[in-house]
Amino acid sequence: MSIEHTADEGAMSFQDHYPDDVAHCYGCGRFNEHGHRIRSFWDGEQSVCTFIPRPYHTAIPGYVYGGLIASLIDCHCVGTAAAATYRAQKREPGSEPALRFVTASLQVDYLRPTPLGPPLALRATVEEVKGRKVVVSCTLSAGGEVCARGRVVAVQLPELIRPLPPL
Amino acid sequence: MSIEHTADEGAMSFQDHYPDDVAHCYGCGRFNEHGHRIRSFWDGEQSVCTFIPRPYHTAIPGYVYGGLIASLIDCHCVGTAAAATYRAQKREPGSEPALRFVTASLQVDYLRPTPLGPPLALRATVEEVKGRKVVVSCTLSAGGEVCARGRVVAVQLPELIRPLPPL
Repeated sequence: MSIEHTADEGAMSFQDHYPDDVAHCYGCGRFNEHGHRIRSFWDGEQSVCTFIPRPYHTAIPGYVYGGLIASLIDCHCVGTAAAATYRAQKREPGSEPALRFVTASLQVDYLRPTPLGPPLALRATVEEVKGRKVVVSCTLSAGGEVCARGRVVAVQLPELIRPLPPL
Repeated sequence: MSIEHTADEGAMSFQDHYPDDVAHCYGCGRFNEHGHRIRSFWDGEQSVCTFIPRPYHTAIPGYVYGGLIASLIDCHCVGTAAAATYRAQKREPGSEPALRFVTASLQVDYLRPTPLGPPLALRATVEEVKGRKVVVSCTLSAGGEVCARGRVVAVQLPELIRPLPPL
C-alpha cells in the first residue's frame, strides 16, 4: 500500500516541507545527494514511507543491515513528528514558523531477519503530541511481514532563524 | 584514547575474526566496500572504536546524522558481544566454532548534538553474558564529550555452517 504513496513523485512529502537550511540530513534531506532521501506521507491517521535498499545494505548476506532499519525508522518518525505537529496546530504543512524535529531517543526491536530485496514499508503511528515533544511508533515490513518495530521520541528544534529575503 | 587503538592497522580487530561468509555487514563487514568497516578492540574490560564521519553524514548542518550514531553503536556492541563471549568461554578470538552475533534490540539516547568533524569515539561495557544473549552498553563521544548513549541486546547466530575445505 505504501508503495503507491511514495511512488507518487508529484505529491509533497513531509520532508519536502523542511526549510532549505535544515534539509541536508543523510536520512531524509532532499539536498543530501549521498543520502537516503526518504519521503513520508499521511495515510489517514498513520504515516507511510517506502524504501528500496541497495544490495550493499546488507547485514548477514541476504538480510538488511540493522543500522539502515534504525535509520529509516528514525527519520520517518521525525518527519512524522513535524507533520503531526502542523496537524495538531491546524496549520498548513510548511507554514511559518517552520517545524523541524530531532531525535531524543530511538528504540528498535528486531523481530526477525529482514530479507534484502523487497521494498521496506514503514508505517508510523503518532502516540503523543505534547508541547515540543512528539512520540511516534513505527513498524518496518518486508513482503508484508513486520520485521522490526521502533519508537522515537522527537523534540522540536528551537524556532529556526530564517534567512532574510534579499532586499 | 581510542584513536590509538584503531589507528593500529596491524592489530586484529573483533571484526577481523568474523568468518568470511558473514563479514559483509554494511557497518562492520571487512568485505563491504561501500560500508563503514568499523574496527573494535579491547581496552581492558571495555571495548573501543573510532570512526571519522564523512561530511555528508550530517543531520542538521554541522552535526552528525543520528542514524549513523545508531549504526555505529549497534555494530560496535555486536562485535563486542562476540569478543566477550570468546573471553567468557576462555577461547581464542576467531577459534572454531566461530561466534557471530546479531541485534535483537537497540536503544539510543541522544544527549546533545554531536559535532560533525572530530573523530567519534565509542566505548562499550559488557553488562551481561548469558547463554546466547549478551547485553552491551556504549557511549559515543566527540571532542571528549559524551553525545549519545546506547544499549544493545545481541543474540548469537546458530552455529555457522562452515564451507567444507576442497578435497
